[in-house]
Amino acid sequence: MANATVDLVGIGNALVDVLVNVEDSFLNAEDLQKGGMFLVDAAQSDALYTKLSDLFPAGVEMSGGSCGNTMAGFASLGGKGAYIGKVKADQFGDAFRKGMQDQGVAFDSSPTTEGLATGKCLVLVSPDAQRTMVTFLGAATELTPDDVTEETIASGKVVYLEGYLFDQDAAKNAFIKAADLAHDAGQEVSLTLSDGFCVDRHRDAFRALVEDHVDILFANEQEILSLYQVENFDDALQQVRAHCRIACLTRSEKGSVVLSGEDVHIVDAEPVDRVVDTTGAGDLYAAGFLYGYTQGLPLATCGRIGAIASAEVISHYGARPEADLKALVAAKLDL
Amino acid sequence: MANATVDLVGIGNALVDVLVNVEDSFLNAEDLQKGGMFLVDAAQSDALYTKLSDLFPAGVEMSGGSCGNTMAGFASLGGKGAYIGKVKADQFGDAFRKGMQDQGVAFDSSPTTEGLATGKCLVLVSPDAQRTMVTFLGAATELTPDDVTEETIASGKVVYLEGYLFDQDAAKNAFIKAADLAHDAGQEVSLTLSDGFCVDRHRDAFRALVEDHVDILFANEQEILSLYQVENFDDALQQVRAHCRIACLTRSEKGSVVLSGEDVHIVDAEPVDRVVDTTGAGDLYAAGFLYGYTQGLPLATCGRIGAIASAEVISHYGARPEADLKALVAAKLDL
Repeated sequence: MANATVDLVGIGNALVDVLVNVEDSFLNAEDLQKGGMFLVDAAQSDALYTKLSDLFPAGVEMSGGSCGNTMAGFASLGGKGAYIGKVKADQFGDAFRKGMQDQGVAFDSSPTTEGLATGKCLVLVSPDAQRTMVTFLGAATELTPDDVTEETIASGKVVYLEGYLFDQDAAKNAFIKAADLAHDAGQEVSLTLSDGFCVDRHRDAFRALVEDHVDILFANEQEILSLYQVENFDDALQQVRAHCRIACLTRSEKGSVVLSGEDVHIVDAEPVDRVVDTTGAGDLYAAGFLYGYTQGLPLATCGRIGAIASAEVISHYGARPEADLKALVAAKLDL
Repeated sequence: MANATVDLVGIGNALVDVLVNVEDSFLNAEDLQKGGMFLVDAAQSDALYTKLSDLFPAGVEMSGGSCGNTMAGFASLGGKGAYIGKVKADQFGDAFRKGMQDQGVAFDSSPTTEGLATGKCLVLVSPDAQRTMVTFLGAATELTPDDVTEETIASGKVVYLEGYLFDQDAAKNAFIKAADLAHDAGQEVSLTLSDGFCVDRHRDAFRALVEDHVDILFANEQEILSLYQVENFDDALQQVRAHCRIACLTRSEKGSVVLSGEDVHIVDAEPVDRVVDTTGAGDLYAAGFLYGYTQGLPLATCGRIGAIASAEVISHYGARPEADLKALVAAKLDL
C-alpha cells in the first residue's frame, strides 16, 4: 500500500436518484413489493417517472447509486476516494459527475457517447420511511473490465464493490477483475450484498465470491439470511463467521454486528430523533466503517462511525450526507 | 453428575411478591428511582404497604423472589428443581411454600420459628410496564451456610444463585459454600447479577466471583455495564468474554447475547403483543436458558428457550409463568 494515493476505490452503478414520496397504495397498485429493488428498461422507467410526476409532488434529483452514496459519505468523513462507474455524456451524466466531484470524490471514468442514457433510480419513499427502488441501469450496464485499470485499483488501499453490479455480466467481470487486481497489489476487497432480491438472483455466485475473494463483507439482515438461506439471524451469523474474514451485519434499529475471527462487536444503532428516509442507510454505514478501517482504527470504532454516518443519512430525505460527517464523528467519538 | 436427582438447585431470597400498579408520580413522591430495587426494614415496608393500600387498587400477592421465579419457570418447562431459601413459619411463609410446591419445585428448607417475618417484595409496576421493587428481606436474611447441605447441592446438575443474596453476609457465605460444594461435586455454578444497584454495592466481590467461581453468568445490560464500569454494551461484552466461561447478556427488546469462548450467539427477543409487566423477565430468561442447558441443548437453543419464557412472563401481570412453558416451547421450537 506504499503507493496508495486514495484510501478507497469504489466501483458501482452510476445512477441519478429521483426521490419521490408515495403512498403505500401506489406501491400496491404498481405491484412493487416494499423495500425491494426492481430493474426496469428505459420505457418502463420513463412510464413510471411520468406517472409519478402526475400523482406526487416533484421529487428531488441527485447523483446516487449505492456505491456513489458510500463514496460521498467517505469523502465527507475526510477520506480520499475514487469512483469507477459509467454514465453517458448527457444531462444526467453531467449532473452525476458534477455531484461526485462536488463531494470531493475523484471520478475519471470516461462517459459513453452512444448507447443507453445515464441510469436512473426512482426511489419511492413510503410514509414509514422505507424505500422501494425502480432502477433503469442505462449506461451503467456498459461498464466493462476495460474501465477497471490497474493504475486506479493500485492507487487505493481497499476496493469497494456493490453487489448490484452482479446483475450485468460485463460489470460482474469488471468486478472480478478489480478484486483480482486488488489482491495482486496486496490490497483488500470489500463488498456489499446490496439487496435481498439481488442475492436471490445470484446466490451461488455471491457465496463463492464471499468465500474466495472478499475480505470485508457488508450485508443487512435480509441479505445475509438470503445468502445462507436460513431463517434466523444467529444462524446466518454462524455461517458468515466461518466464511469471511470481516463481516459487518447491519440490523436497522438493532444496530450492527462486526465479526472477525474470534472478534465480535455488537454496535448499537445511533439514536435518531425521527427516521425520515432510510435510503442510503447501508451505504453510509459502509462509508463510516471503511473510513475507520482505512484509518487503522479498531473494528468496534469502525462500526461506531458507520452507525453515526448511517444515523445522519436516515434523519433527512436523500441518500447523501447533509452534515459534515467528519465534524459529526469527531464530536461524538473524540477522535 | 451420575447421582443427580434434580437438574437445578436454586438458592435465593424467599419473598412473597405484592404487585401494585402505580403512577410515576407516586415513585417520584416516594423518591424511588424507577427500575431499582430498594431494601427497607419491616417498619418501612409496612408503612409503604399501608400507603399503597390506600392509594391504589389491591395488588396481587404471590410467592416470588428472583430465584423463586426462575425455579417456577424451570419447573413449568419440565425441569426438576429444588429450592433453598428461608421463610418464617407464618402466614406468608406458608403461602410461599405452598406456591413453590404447587409449581412442582422441591422446597425443604426448614422455616424459622422466631425472628423476622417472612420477607416481602412490594413490586410497583408503572404504566410503562417497568417495575420498581421495595424489599423487606425478613426471614430470608436468616439463611445461613447451614441451610446449604452437601446432599441437596450434590443432588443437582447446576446450582443457580441470585446476586441479591450478596446483600446479607450470612447469605453470601451460604452462596460461597454452595459454589464450592457444587464445584467439588463436579457440577456447575450459575449466577444472576440481579440488579444494577446491587452490583454497585458489591462490585469487587462480584468481579472476583465471576472470575473465580461462576461458570454461567446472567446479567442484563445495566448490570453488566455496572460490573465493568463501562458505558457501552460492546465494551462490557469484551470484558465478560475474557472473564467468564458462559455469559448470557439480556437486552430487553434487543434480545440477548450468549457468549462462550469463541462461540457467540445473538438471540432475538421473542415478539410480544403487549408488554404488561416486565417483572420476572430476567428470572424467566435464566429459567429457559438453564432448562435447555441441563438438557444438553446447544447454547443458541438455550437462549431461544430463555427468550420464549421471558416473553411469556412479560405479557401478563406477575413474575411467574401462566402458560405451560413446556408446551409453549415445544410448539415454537419443535423440540
